[in-house]
Amino acid sequence: MVKQMFEVRDKQMIDALLERVEYGTLAVSYKDEPYAVPLNFVYINDVIYFHGALRNKKMKMLKQNPKVSFSVVKNYALIASFFSTTEGLACPATQFFKSVSIRGHAQVIETREEKAMVFEALMKKLQPEGGYRPFSEDAYDQALRTTAVVKIVPTSLQCKFKFGQHLTSERFEMIQSFLKERHTKVDQETLEMMNILRGTVGHV
Amino acid sequence: MVKQMFEVRDKQMIDALLERVEYGTLAVSYKDEPYAVPLNFVYINDVIYFHGALRNKKMKMLKQNPKVSFSVVKNYALIASFFSTTEGLACPATQFFKSVSIRGHAQVIETREEKAMVFEALMKKLQPEGGYRPFSEDAYDQALRTTAVVKIVPTSLQCKFKFGQHLTSERFEMIQSFLKERHTKVDQETLEMMNILRGTVGHV
Repeated sequence: MVKQMFEVRDKQMIDALLERVEYGTLAVSYKDEPYAVPLNFVYINDVIYFHGALRNKKMKMLKQNPKVSFSVVKNYALIASFFSTTEGLACPATQFFKSVSIRGHAQVIETREEKAMVFEALMKKLQPEGGYRPFSEDAYDQALRTTAVVKIVPTSLQCKFKFGQHLTSERFEMIQSFLKERHTKVDQETLEMMNILRGTVGHV
Repeated sequence: MVKQMFEVRDKQMIDALLERVEYGTLAVSYKDEPYAVPLNFVYINDVIYFHGALRNKKMKMLKQNPKVSFSVVKNYALIASFFSTTEGLACPATQFFKSVSIRGHAQVIETREEKAMVFEALMKKLQPEGGYRPFSEDAYDQALRTTAVVKIVPTSLQCKFKFGQHLTSERFEMIQSFLKERHTKVDQETLEMMNILRGTVGHV
């Protein structure tokens, strides 16, 4: 199956993606009706953490059904159809990407210590330049009390990197020359990933 | 409620977002368990279309439960906490964004004509430079037959643009000067949106 060629099992690669991507999309099910919501999040020791208002829609849904799906994507270059075929068909058009799909259970965090740890990590991720007081200070007591922090403990995690690993050398190299010619920032990042993954054909 | 200040009802603004964003995340519920999956899609006449393999996981789930949630995000600048406070607290840290949340029902498309129309639109969106043969050609018959195309007819659509509309002039202008100083591409795009939305306070 072609899809298995894109599967990545290298923990360092998976962690690097989850540690850097700005947001993910949480899906919950409430009375068998799905609800998708985008979230900034932080990934610490194999656990996803996010925060929100104590009494919002998703918190109510999670209380009733803690099963969640969490999806993270980093898109790379759009690959035009003519990058890999001379026959003029549109079908080879695609987009290269990295993605993670997590299934798990949501748990609300209760202690001030764990909440503070999550906010420190979230700030470190999204505001690496610093410039704020540490969450151990009393000044944060009320904010921490009135904010819900939720952790998702994964029961399964699937990671895919699609960078042409399934293609023949001929088509792979044709794509590379078009990307070198177009040469945007994302094209350069895509070329780097293609070279890293080349020849691995799945199960990195 | 602060959240209502971010609501956008201007159809042109909503359409422009849905027509340009590269991907969205579909959530489905299968036996009351959620599943989130990212998709390239196209938005035509208030309907979301996507395609996939005829017999994959999400097609099986949608057959059983056609209720879907579809989430689209375009992230703008990360707003550091010190962009809008001199007190050193981390709490004002945020990210500006545009988002759309759709609820609806998935329907599988059966006719060659509608399928071809969707693929033409998808290619026009993701490969605007052209360079492929039209989908009316017989050469596409088999590909169209073996690919599932699904449409989501929205039953509700909520759009939010968060660009500091809820802030005092003082904090709003403080953020603007920091963005002008940092001056990345996304900061410039954020400044433009801040100016467009300023003073609208919801219900654009």
